[in-house]
Amino acid sequence: MRYASPAPSAVSLADPVLAPRVEANRTATIPACLKHFEKEHCIDALKLKWKKGDKWWPHIFWDSDVAKVVEGMARELARKPDPALAKELDRVAKLIVSAQQPDGYLNTHFTLVEPEKRWTNLHDWHELYCAGHLMEAAVAHFEATGERFFLDAMRRYADLIAKTFGRRRGQKRGYPGHEEIELALCRLARATGERKYLDLAHYFVDERGRAPNYYVEKEGWQSWRLEYLQAHKPPREQREAVGHAVRWAYLCCGMVDAGDAKPDVGLLEAAVAMWKNATKRRMLVTGGIGTARDGEAFERDFKLDNLTAYAESCAAIGLALLSRRLHDLTGGARGIDVFERALYNGIPSGVSLSGDRFFYQNPLASNADSPYARERQAWFQCSCCPTNFARFWPQVAQLCWAVRAGEVRLCVPAASELVHPTGVRLKVESRYPYDGRIVVKVLDGRRQAKALGFPTLELTINGKPIPATAFRFSLRIPGWCKKFALSLNGKRVAAKADKGVVALKRIWKPGDEIVLDLAMPVQVLRANDSVAADAGCIALQRGPLVYALESVDNGPGLHRLSIPAKQDFKLVAAKGLPRGTVAIAGTAFETTRPGDALYSDAAPRTRRRRFVAIPYALWQNRGPAEMQVWTREA
Amino acid sequence: MRYASPAPSAVSLADPVLAPRVEANRTATIPACLKHFEKEHCIDALKLKWKKGDKWWPHIFWDSDVAKVVEGMARELARKPDPALAKELDRVAKLIVSAQQPDGYLNTHFTLVEPEKRWTNLHDWHELYCAGHLMEAAVAHFEATGERFFLDAMRRYADLIAKTFGRRRGQKRGYPGHEEIELALCRLARATGERKYLDLAHYFVDERGRAPNYYVEKEGWQSWRLEYLQAHKPPREQREAVGHAVRWAYLCCGMVDAGDAKPDVGLLEAAVAMWKNATKRRMLVTGGIGTARDGEAFERDFKLDNLTAYAESCAAIGLALLSRRLHDLTGGARGIDVFERALYNGIPSGVSLSGDRFFYQNPLASNADSPYARERQAWFQCSCCPTNFARFWPQVAQLCWAVRAGEVRLCVPAASELVHPTGVRLKVESRYPYDGRIVVKVLDGRRQAKALGFPTLELTINGKPIPATAFRFSLRIPGWCKKFALSLNGKRVAAKADKGVVALKRIWKPGDEIVLDLAMPVQVLRANDSVAADAGCIALQRGPLVYALESVDNGPGLHRLSIPAKQDFKLVAAKGLPRGTVAIAGTAFETTRPGDALYSDAAPRTRRRRFVAIPYALWQNRGPAEMQVWTREA
Repeated sequence: MRYASPAPSAVSLADPVLAPRVEANRTATIPACLKHFEKEHCIDALKLKWKKGDKWWPHIFWDSDVAKVVEGMARELARKPDPALAKELDRVAKLIVSAQQPDGYLNTHFTLVEPEKRWTNLHDWHELYCAGHLMEAAVAHFEATGERFFLDAMRRYADLIAKTFGRRRGQKRGYPGHEEIELALCRLARATGERKYLDLAHYFVDERGRAPNYYVEKEGWQSWRLEYLQAHKPPREQREAVGHAVRWAYLCCGMVDAGDAKPDVGLLEAAVAMWKNATKRRMLVTGGIGTARDGEAFERDFKLDNLTAYAESCAAIGLALLSRRLHDLTGGARGIDVFERALYNGIPSGVSLSGDRFFYQNPLASNADSPYARERQAWFQCSCCPTNFARFWPQVAQLCWAVRAGEVRLCVPAASELVHPTGVRLKVESRYPYDGRIVVKVLDGRRQAKALGFPTLELTINGKPIPATAFRFSLRIPGWCKKFALSLNGKRVAAKADKGVVALKRIWKPGDEIVLDLAMPVQVLRANDSVAADAGCIALQRGPLVYALESVDNGPGLHRLSIPAKQDFKLVAAKGLPRGTVAIAGTAFETTRPGDALYSDAAPRTRRRRFVAIPYALWQNRGPAEMQVWTREA
Repeated sequence: MRYASPAPSAVSLADPVLAPRVEANRTATIPACLKHFEKEHCIDALKLKWKKGDKWWPHIFWDSDVAKVVEGMARELARKPDPALAKELDRVAKLIVSAQQPDGYLNTHFTLVEPEKRWTNLHDWHELYCAGHLMEAAVAHFEATGERFFLDAMRRYADLIAKTFGRRRGQKRGYPGHEEIELALCRLARATGERKYLDLAHYFVDERGRAPNYYVEKEGWQSWRLEYLQAHKPPREQREAVGHAVRWAYLCCGMVDAGDAKPDVGLLEAAVAMWKNATKRRMLVTGGIGTARDGEAFERDFKLDNLTAYAESCAAIGLALLSRRLHDLTGGARGIDVFERALYNGIPSGVSLSGDRFFYQNPLASNADSPYARERQAWFQCSCCPTNFARFWPQVAQLCWAVRAGEVRLCVPAASELVHPTGVRLKVESRYPYDGRIVVKVLDGRRQAKALGFPTLELTINGKPIPATAFRFSLRIPGWCKKFALSLNGKRVAAKADKGVVALKRIWKPGDEIVLDLAMPVQVLRANDSVAADAGCIALQRGPLVYALESVDNGPGLHRLSIPAKQDFKLVAAKGLPRGTVAIAGTAFETTRPGDALYSDAAPRTRRRRFVAIPYALWQNRGPAEMQVWTREA
């Protein structure tokens, strides 16, 4: 049986890193997005206010931006009641539905601006992508509120799409240029119990990349660019992560969802193979993917340049969600390793601590030569990233845990609490990711379980009732951790990690206490020696956090620094960052070459000095700065 | 008085590096260019054969390509008689003239394809650039053959241009988008004695970049792109090397030629300042300039990336010719240092030893990630580089020497011979640039001087005749040379270099012998510590030759190598390269990291091994290969 996330209301976070991000998302990111939607006419578009001659026009992906924020609001509301938020959610959801056409169609651009072009350019115009996000929003809205109006509207839209696309006479044999609807249809199928939506998801996955190619034959797309859309061959035959990274991640999520729901091992195998290629050969140390500036796309194995690494925020989110799916499918914790790498590094780097400024690109170095914005921006013409944050953060508490019948798994040991249907609460106390000591307290949770509406469980084995608090509690041992110790009620447990987890099975009682000590030294990472960009360089990691040098702490000219790998790194307080943030300090060498000649055989001068590294995710929260993750080894 | 090159027929080369290049140019490059002109319809264009509906059409810069090869043929013919070459030159020169229109205009594209667009897009369409190359060709043709038909035709063209452009009523106040005609007009003025052409050159230089801007006002060019054409302000106010590097180099050459011929110190000062900026902050160690792939242009100070360095072959030639001009103007040998750096590195890298394959870009590293062609090509759609080689190599023997009244200067001590009007021959015997021992023998050259038509010189001081063989013989001490010894007729001369030269003044007699020993150790270069791309890296140079590692000698994965700066480098024979080529061998370390993880804290393994470096200019003459100039210092 698959692992799943616990219900949103059953978990809460209290850690020093994720909880403030979730809160900033609620108080700053979501309101900022809504404000921009008003200002940028996205709301006017949904009111179908555009008319010829207006200076603005509904962009082809505006509907998806609004949908993603609605999804985020719904997920936030599902975490805990909030009447004001509920009211706002209701307003925007109704607004969306009001834009739906009598036949079920819902896309403001192709309703208002170019109605004659509906479904005529699938490779570029994002109609099915927008539809997917609308469906995801509708499902989240239904799950948060129990109200069906948005869900029903999106069922009508899905029905129209099912009528339009397929292999029957009179149907278009097309499929989306930007994948997303595949996973959304699986979600819609689960929420409605309607198998036809799953069938449509399978159609979209399976039709993709077939010869003769739809985009080439019907839309005049260049065949050499099919890899960009993962349409160069059918997904089940693909083994490499290629093309636009966000599209790729959403495609793989759809393959896992569809291939798991209506079993299709071929899809699952292909998704796993592509994920392995992506994460073992084409991923930055921060969990960023899609390093090519040109096309926001994957590059060849081991081409992982730092300054130019594109690493779109959305792509890191996509990789995280895919990686979590693969954990849920297989139970192997390596998926969580990748999830966690993105969660603590390549995802949060995309948003300021204040929650209202964003990076679209997340390179691993930044200086005067950077091709990207060097400060986070309030908004983008294509604002997929801010709106993706809006819906990602509210899920994070759930994503730290995984459950299945008879098992609770702590995936990411951030301070948090889970109310279990059996009537216990599992409370994680830790300063993770800044500290490796994880204390899990078992508390009486009957009241909370009842409040959450969990049914009273009665389990029997061979007719004999067994206590409902008997379950397997598994704890992930992170891939970065080389040494750990586990104890139960003060007694050391000699547990060996199996597939990246240790498990305790017993009848849990309030008062039980588990302590997991994860050794968390500063680790000196080196890239695979096929990565030319990182040759001779090291990166520092501690726990799941990748560290970076910023000129705020180290002065300009970071390229002049080199760091000895063997030294006693010190943990210090980071200046100008949230209290409790752990920085790494140590000895570096600064090399200068005398004289102002451009090239000379003068001997260089090297002086010993201190360096400070901060968590990569927190860079550019103290003004514009030079930054680098990989530093030359002294 | 200015220095100048000796007459082409007064010098000859016999060195191991330049002489074979000049010969390959004569036997391979020039014939290859002529063959391509036939095949690509450039010749048909001059025959005015194009008509509407033809699959080919005369490109806007085809005339310049043919002109440059004609210039090369003329310069080659001027070196020594060659009836076959003379006939071919005559044929092509007449062909060019045959395309001239009754009013003097000569441009095949704007005669045949778009006659109505003549002079309407100066910023992009290269009409004045083509005109400049035609004038240069005509002057070279006249100087080589004494025939005036081509020169006269180009005078008529120049007269038309002078009528068309200027500040008088009814004239266009435009100037070329791609500079070149400025220096060509100065050459035409010298050859014809007509001051009006010099005036026109001054007009073009001075009108450039004036407000209101011609390109912006009359041609709708974007003002933020004016730097690309050095038209953001008047050249005399410019101090930085910006924009398209070839355009910049030709502009500066024109500024020096014009500013020197009709004295204008402002122009000279500006050219010198820009040259200093280019060579002290924006030049590759090979003498390549214009590192930006986007626009073939200069980048900001110290931005000198290796793999992506554009460094067009033409730009290195342009910088060399400018640098030589600045030496001739000031007598300071630093201009020759830059000239020599390009001459032995960034220029010859652009052409194969066989003379018929070309690099357009000359980056300082090449591997699977290279954005450029990794093998030299036979031809390009824009074939400015092959045709620039065709006219550059025949000048090289002259450019190794400089003369002025009472002085002969050996600028580049390659094995060569100069016949001096005074009736002595100076014969340089050396294996330069592979060896630093330079022997200059004074021989009886009366017969040769007579054959060359030098007048018999009679000099007097205060009425007293002095022997005509009394002149100052100055020898350049290269900037890379830290130690030298000079002897005359076996006796050590205690000479100190002044402005990069040592000088001997005496009455020269056949049998005199000068020996200059230039210490030529392997030098370990480091870039200015503001060059981030080269931080932690070294490059090897010996004499004027910059060395590079090629995978042919070292195996693939050059990024895994590091080289200790302090070691006994060995000079060895280079495999598969011309006999006598000196390679450098030494100890390197190859670092690998165990395991196939993308990132890991596993300790790296380092093994000691041998490396071999070859002269950069000779890379990719033994098949496709990885290459790098800058290697990590161990």
